Amino acid sequence: MREISGGITAPLGFLAAGLHVGIKKPPLLDLALVVSVREGPIAGVFTRNRVAAAPVLLDRRHLQRGTGRAVIVNSGNANACTGARGFADAEEMGALTAAQLGTDPGTVFVGSTGVIGQPLPMRCIRRGIPMLVKQLKRRGGREAARAILTTDTRTKEVAVRARIAGRVVTVGGMAKGSGMIHPDMATMLAYLTTDAAIEQRTLQRALVAAVNPSFNCISVDGDTSTNDTVLCLANGMAGVPVLRAGSAACAVFQRLLDHACRSLAMQVCRDGEGATKIVEVNVTGARTRADAKQVARVVATSSLVKTALFGEDANWGRIMAAIGRSGVPVDPNKIGLAFEGIPIVKAGVGLGTSAEHRLARIVRRKEFALTVDLGQGSATSRLWTTDLSYDYVKINASYHS
Amino acid sequence: MREISGGITAPLGFLAAGLHVGIKKPPLLDLALVVSVREGPIAGVFTRNRVAAAPVLLDRRHLQRGTGRAVIVNSGNANACTGARGFADAEEMGALTAAQLGTDPGTVFVGSTGVIGQPLPMRCIRRGIPMLVKQLKRRGGREAARAILTTDTRTKEVAVRARIAGRVVTVGGMAKGSGMIHPDMATMLAYLTTDAAIEQRTLQRALVAAVNPSFNCISVDGDTSTNDTVLCLANGMAGVPVLRAGSAACAVFQRLLDHACRSLAMQVCRDGEGATKIVEVNVTGARTRADAKQVARVVATSSLVKTALFGEDANWGRIMAAIGRSGVPVDPNKIGLAFEGIPIVKAGVGLGTSAEHRLARIVRRKEFALTVDLGQGSATSRLWTTDLSYDYVKINASYHS
Repeated sequence: MREISGGITAPLGFLAAGLHVGIKKPPLLDLALVVSVREGPIAGVFTRNRVAAAPVLLDRRHLQRGTGRAVIVNSGNANACTGARGFADAEEMGALTAAQLGTDPGTVFVGSTGVIGQPLPMRCIRRGIPMLVKQLKRRGGREAARAILTTDTRTKEVAVRARIAGRVVTVGGMAKGSGMIHPDMATMLAYLTTDAAIEQRTLQRALVAAVNPSFNCISVDGDTSTNDTVLCLANGMAGVPVLRAGSAACAVFQRLLDHACRSLAMQVCRDGEGATKIVEVNVTGARTRADAKQVARVVATSSLVKTALFGEDANWGRIMAAIGRSGVPVDPNKIGLAFEGIPIVKAGVGLGTSAEHRLARIVRRKEFALTVDLGQGSATSRLWTTDLSYDYVKINASYHS
Repeated sequence: MREISGGITAPLGFLAAGLHVGIKKPPLLDLALVVSVREGPIAGVFTRNRVAAAPVLLDRRHLQRGTGRAVIVNSGNANACTGARGFADAEEMGALTAAQLGTDPGTVFVGSTGVIGQPLPMRCIRRGIPMLVKQLKRRGGREAARAILTTDTRTKEVAVRARIAGRVVTVGGMAKGSGMIHPDMATMLAYLTTDAAIEQRTLQRALVAAVNPSFNCISVDGDTSTNDTVLCLANGMAGVPVLRAGSAACAVFQRLLDHACRSLAMQVCRDGEGATKIVEVNVTGARTRADAKQVARVVATSSLVKTALFGEDANWGRIMAAIGRSGVPVDPNKIGLAFEGIPIVKAGVGLGTSAEHRLARIVRRKEFALTVDLGQGSATSRLWTTDLSYDYVKINASYHS
């Protein structure tokens, strides 16, 4: 397996384009299109937010058929909380694209990201789609990746390939997201492509398996958005036989997909709004996996923990307080804390000044891991989180207007 | 019922003092003592954080007897995550005070607030207690209120009185807290005194009834601390007959206690770390009270909602997104949002530009109310929250060191 360039258009048979059509201020790109030269199975995972945006509702419906040809995505407007009109707009956005491509509207998936509650500026989109189709090109991945960004400071792309059954199989992808990042996804859109041949059910299972330890394990601010979507479209152009679930070939494909999702998720986390650090939060010794997950989530989203990380402050007491309020029946006298493997707390009590001096050096790093051991069992969980900085407040106090 | 000055020493028979003994940097006061001239029933409510500090463990034990004479509180050190030594230190702090007052150690309650995980500087405390007892005075409420502060920018005091059975009954109080403020309390200490005569069980019930809609309904940062404590000591000095549960006289006393708790809770909220606004979050039309509470909590603690409040940004989409991810099975098409009674969202859809213009004016106010109507039932809930500002990050990035 090796990483290559090319992003979402790295696999065979995919074209993409990105354009400024007038939703955002010029010259920012705001409409992206990814097209496969032929239809193929498509898998999807969506936000669990009850207030789901119109494009999510539409894509969920399309996914029941399970065949995809293209994805059209706008940034600058989330088309969420827009009622029946919003749903009609999403449908029209897909149908116009399908008409231009001469394909079934049910194979065109739609994405939106940006401000909630404003109607989509359909005039720009109607005018933009034919121009966008004309711009489609084999190396259009980067432009598409730029056109889906909102508060992101950089594009997120990945492409990785391996040899399967004597042929080269590639997985490519792009993502956006830097706020509202929380397990069960966030204002996070990720699109993956592959030239592998695979049945829809196998692809769906592989995508869920790849999303859980990647996109579902990063947290920037605890807010899960109305628009989160991960889609993976497979066109079979690599010329390998259809991957069978459970086969060695399918395991190689799973590793490609895992790697792509993990790479995009970490790119999202590193670009977290105002983030200056990434911290890996491990919980071990929990009675159940649910307990481990709950403690990891509470620690990873505590404003007091996150501001201490930003301040490079070795304030482990805030981590203890977060564990204690997690709702999990922990025993304070069994809790251990370690940073990068160095013990700081044992049996609920701090190990003193020399441990704290070592901790003070660790918290100055850009990336480090902390481990909470609950001493109650053997279940574990892992999350990545960011710090909470002045810039997080700045970005989010002024995004809307 | 009317508010008066005097704080925690306003009721008859209470003395207080506050001193600098060396836990914090001079000249900051860091040790407080409140004493009643005679023993009386005491009621208490404590943090539900599993990682409870040593003084909380000690006070819970003392409360089983239910009689109080004094409260000794230090700031600058939380005596939390300090193990067996921490508990012994808390015990010694109470016992030294009891010895000075010539009273039973079981009647002296202990409080601590400040950094977690450092041993209490007992040398300062041992030297300080005899000096503090010498300083006790009838008008010492203000000094005591100053000595329990940490990141607070001002003292929080209240005193309120009413005529009961022909005599004047007074309730006084003081509180500290400005971070880690969240339902089920926070790094929040509140001490109340009264010269009413009341049985312990009745006082305990009255205190719980007063704490639930006040201290348990404010949220600054979603973090609940290891040290939260509310205590109320009654010495019967007003000379009224013992208040019977359910009597008209007891109802008047309940109103005094409610008022005192509400006043202190709002003072804590207004002094929330870096807070520039207080927002009342009402949830109506929920199926159950638990649903209403859950939605209110998620909205009130969303970092994206709170930064939008700071930015005076009419970004109601973030409130919708927070409702959607609350875990409550809401129906997006039934949700209504109103600010200060002005509808902004109906049936899940924004009401357009003129509503938004009115909203833009409301969010510039220092205090306002927002109402989420779920349209599913008749249960309600209410919380007060603050905004998330640069100063919150500043205060919390550097508190420890």
